[in-house]
Amino acid sequence: MKILEERIIKDGVVRAGNVLKVDCFLNHQMDISLFQEMAAEWKKRFEGQKITKILTIEASGIAIACIAATAFDNVPVVFAKKTESLNIDGEIYSSKVTSFTKKRVYDVFVSKKYLKPDDHILIIDDFLAVGSALNGLIDIVQQSGATVEGLGIAIEKGFQGGGDSLREKGYHLESLAIVDKLDAETGEIGFRK
Amino acid sequence: MKILEERIIKDGVVRAGNVLKVDCFLNHQMDISLFQEMAAEWKKRFEGQKITKILTIEASGIAIACIAATAFDNVPVVFAKKTESLNIDGEIYSSKVTSFTKKRVYDVFVSKKYLKPDDHILIIDDFLAVGSALNGLIDIVQQSGATVEGLGIAIEKGFQGGGDSLREKGYHLESLAIVDKLDAETGEIGFRK
Repeated sequence: MKILEERIIKDGVVRAGNVLKVDCFLNHQMDISLFQEMAAEWKKRFEGQKITKILTIEASGIAIACIAATAFDNVPVVFAKKTESLNIDGEIYSSKVTSFTKKRVYDVFVSKKYLKPDDHILIIDDFLAVGSALNGLIDIVQQSGATVEGLGIAIEKGFQGGGDSLREKGYHLESLAIVDKLDAETGEIGFRK
Repeated sequence: MKILEERIIKDGVVRAGNVLKVDCFLNHQMDISLFQEMAAEWKKRFEGQKITKILTIEASGIAIACIAATAFDNVPVVFAKKTESLNIDGEIYSSKVTSFTKKRVYDVFVSKKYLKPDDHILIIDDFLAVGSALNGLIDIVQQSGATVEGLGIAIEKGFQGGGDSLREKGYHLESLAIVDKLDAETGEIGFRK
């Protein structure tokens, strides 16, 4: 998606350790107009697929998922939570996720009330690297018996392999920008053609 | 706001300790159409006020704030983060917040890049009880030199006093539903007239 790639070039900052900082428009300060264009693009790419619910993960996935929902007839959005909360009761689906940036393992969970076998789920998240969060969300959907209709990612770090592994498994993955090169010394950012 | 009050009556669950669970439409599964009606209501209530940015706090404030932004000319949304992240660099504004539901104190912070003295801020959050999160966000805005134009809350627990204390200080606070009574034994929920 050209305008997302251009925005990454303009405002993204490359850091050592394959870190791409985009907190000025994606995951700290958020550009709602850009999110609306991303939503329209996902709508086009998942045209004709039945989507009954969008699933994402806190925190920065929530914003993109909610604006995406406005392009999918305002389907409900559910976000997986990262720590047990006193306000969650009843039974949950859970999975383990390793954070790339925070370098730790945590549990993610969704209340069983909000994923049903007849749901058709579009999973949305801001980043895809090795795919730990996305695989955790897929695991949760599969536990519920619902169908994973598609995976919508804003920025995939293609060189970390998580996306290609999911494509090989047959998932319909639509990443709006696939970064194939990050050079912390020169600041260069290369995209997959 | 009538439709929000009706929804709370229909789907809210009262628990011991003044807990009102609304995770089926507000803060785990999220009803985007309802959020759009809330956004339109805030737009009406803050009519004529200059808003250049919306500030909220992770995680469940993000969804409401992003949909709210679509009613305020898509102004940027910034969310305060709750734990230090390896991906945040440079200087930050921070404040201490006590979580009512999780019963612990944590630091919240916003990068200095995203709040400027000429910003006019609308603070949006899902819940207001004693006001700890809201006061933390106000503190952060004041550190930046920006102006707090208004406070938009989905559900205020009026009997916990945080809202009235902020009104007494002169803030323009617009809570879309003010709960004045929660009875865990009968399940009764009463609203302020």
